Amino acid sequence: MSDLTREKLNQAAAIVAQSGVEVWLTFVRETSAIFDPCLPFLMEGGLTWQGALLVSKSGKKVAVVGNFDTAGLQHSGDWDELIGYVQSIREPLLDALEELIPVSVATPQIAVNYSENDDKCDGLTYGMFRLLESYLAHTRFANALVSAEPIIRALRGRKTSTELSAMRAAIVETDRLFDEIAAFAKISVTERQIADFVHAKITERGLGYAWEQEGNPIVNCGPDSAVGHSAPSQLALAPGHILHIDLGVVQNGYASDLQRCWFVGDTPPEAVLRAHAAVLGAIEAGFAALKPGVSGWEVDAAARSFLVAAGYPEYLHALGHQVGRVAHDGGGILGPCWARYGQTPYWPVEVGQVYTLELGVRVEGYGYWSLEDMVVVTEAGAEWLSTPQRDVWML
Amino acid sequence: MSDLTREKLNQAAAIVAQSGVEVWLTFVRETSAIFDPCLPFLMEGGLTWQGALLVSKSGKKVAVVGNFDTAGLQHSGDWDELIGYVQSIREPLLDALEELIPVSVATPQIAVNYSENDDKCDGLTYGMFRLLESYLAHTRFANALVSAEPIIRALRGRKTSTELSAMRAAIVETDRLFDEIAAFAKISVTERQIADFVHAKITERGLGYAWEQEGNPIVNCGPDSAVGHSAPSQLALAPGHILHIDLGVVQNGYASDLQRCWFVGDTPPEAVLRAHAAVLGAIEAGFAALKPGVSGWEVDAAARSFLVAAGYPEYLHALGHQVGRVAHDGGGILGPCWARYGQTPYWPVEVGQVYTLELGVRVEGYGYWSLEDMVVVTEAGAEWLSTPQRDVWML
Repeated sequence: MSDLTREKLNQAAAIVAQSGVEVWLTFVRETSAIFDPCLPFLMEGGLTWQGALLVSKSGKKVAVVGNFDTAGLQHSGDWDELIGYVQSIREPLLDALEELIPVSVATPQIAVNYSENDDKCDGLTYGMFRLLESYLAHTRFANALVSAEPIIRALRGRKTSTELSAMRAAIVETDRLFDEIAAFAKISVTERQIADFVHAKITERGLGYAWEQEGNPIVNCGPDSAVGHSAPSQLALAPGHILHIDLGVVQNGYASDLQRCWFVGDTPPEAVLRAHAAVLGAIEAGFAALKPGVSGWEVDAAARSFLVAAGYPEYLHALGHQVGRVAHDGGGILGPCWARYGQTPYWPVEVGQVYTLELGVRVEGYGYWSLEDMVVVTEAGAEWLSTPQRDVWML
Repeated sequence: MSDLTREKLNQAAAIVAQSGVEVWLTFVRETSAIFDPCLPFLMEGGLTWQGALLVSKSGKKVAVVGNFDTAGLQHSGDWDELIGYVQSIREPLLDALEELIPVSVATPQIAVNYSENDDKCDGLTYGMFRLLESYLAHTRFANALVSAEPIIRALRGRKTSTELSAMRAAIVETDRLFDEIAAFAKISVTERQIADFVHAKITERGLGYAWEQEGNPIVNCGPDSAVGHSAPSQLALAPGHILHIDLGVVQNGYASDLQRCWFVGDTPPEAVLRAHAAVLGAIEAGFAALKPGVSGWEVDAAARSFLVAAGYPEYLHALGHQVGRVAHDGGGILGPCWARYGQTPYWPVEVGQVYTLELGVRVEGYGYWSLEDMVVVTEAGAEWLSTPQRDVWML
């Protein structure tokens, strides 16, 4: 992991250099309580007292942290300057900013981690923002704070080869779990039992969860199961059911997020075959539209209009989100221009981003047929990271 | 856990009723990315889309959440009203506030989770604060947002009997681990090996970590070990060393945080005996000063002055912090009036609060002698939750 942190920290310095700001400042405290999602790109572990991690446009990395927090950062060797303090961070932080930002810069900009659009760029709490403002008051940095959103989404989105390898490994583990689920899921097995089975395997293999364990995997057996982010129920699998699984694991710090479906029986009815064709077709329409420079909403629209043309209602979510250290990794999404997505559907697709393509339909009397795969954006368009489910699988 | 959530949620309603605000509003999104530390007092699990959990002064509990997030809250039965939305939370949130806050209230106050002083009361990110402000703009709630710090610290600090039982259970598990460490820690065993041994036991018993696993336990073997929040090293235990352990586990959702020390050898030198007496004496001086109504800094001062009078330098941290769902549970601390502690040393001690009492000294040539125990504040003063280490233990 240490090499990866260094790789991303160097990438961060390159992004800051091109961003127009003088310094990117990550300001945290007691990270076991509130954990800024940027932190793993800057250091391993966490901090206890107020700490400021600074990356300047010149590429200099300076950490100002509580004196009990210095040892871990020292050990990493990643920081050009490491300043410990006992009573207050204010003076050493101001000294560090003075050193990094030439007096000749008339209106210096310091980027901090907040965003209305993207929770992954929004690790700075309001109390910490107010503290920082109070430290900078009556200095030449009094009006310097701007959003680091553009820096962070570039850093998270542009995956390095190490990150892509880790995600491929997570996908391999997820496919293995899907195979095991198919062998385990007999008639009368409950959603809860399937989830428990998967949890045991995840623990046994030392994998992590790409989202909270309570709803991971999501398991839906048949037409009476509640679709959404809810815990698996006592509903049991029966002939004629669709079994739907949404599962994501973490391997080497990186996540997968995939959905697969099975029909319980030898002969899938026409309604299920038709649903599968529509879902797969819509996902492939999205895949075809995905390339650098397009806006996320355009990719969503390609899939959404395919599905509607096939006679199904629109899905009530985005076609895809980026995947990285967690399943919902932030940055631009492939989604409709709904208020709740803020600006994220308007952001351009970039090379190196990893997206899910996911959607589903209810099949009256059978259940929920929904598929999800992962792709990486290339110069030419997109490449599948996972292998799409092209057939109606049967149990 | 569900009973506990209900217990705390009802306690929250009682606190809001006496707080002077109309509504306490917890505003979160994608809680697998940023987790507001208040959330476990309101619900189990997390939320994905923007969600608002409202507790009014009349005791009404209303949740406005994304439509995929409703199922879990529905199941709890804790919410008087549960409103799902698809495209934007703005309208249903404003409707809920309209319903909860009578038009007759001239200057309504809505408490949200930010604090400069206390990270456990500071779960609202700056981006989310800005979003909320934009939703309330041009309504009668445009200037209504105030800090929920007084509500949250009362809620976290005033432990119910269920919470105290859980913490006693965590302490029992921690004492058991200390006994096992004493049996395991032979000459030439490294700090790393001791930590690995403890991690294996914690996993085996299904316990959680009261702070990040990387530095939990803190293990210090002898005089060359770095004191602080750093990972255990390859330093090995040798005759004449002090072995110092700082360990906290989570049992039933609640934490312990204790420190113990051993001398490696049959005859502790005078310097170690003297250090132990000074450390224990200072902790007992703090214990004697701890009672409802005093300020935290007064309790710290009692211990600090005892230690200095005994000829040792001041410790570079607070005498104690509150313990609850995590080791550093927020609220007032027993600490000096240093800038980095903000207002927290000035806050009054209250019945039902659980504090650590902890401090240590370096013993030249032997290592770090530091002890930590846990106490609960009662009407009469304080009671030990853990059993203090009264003797110099030997390995």
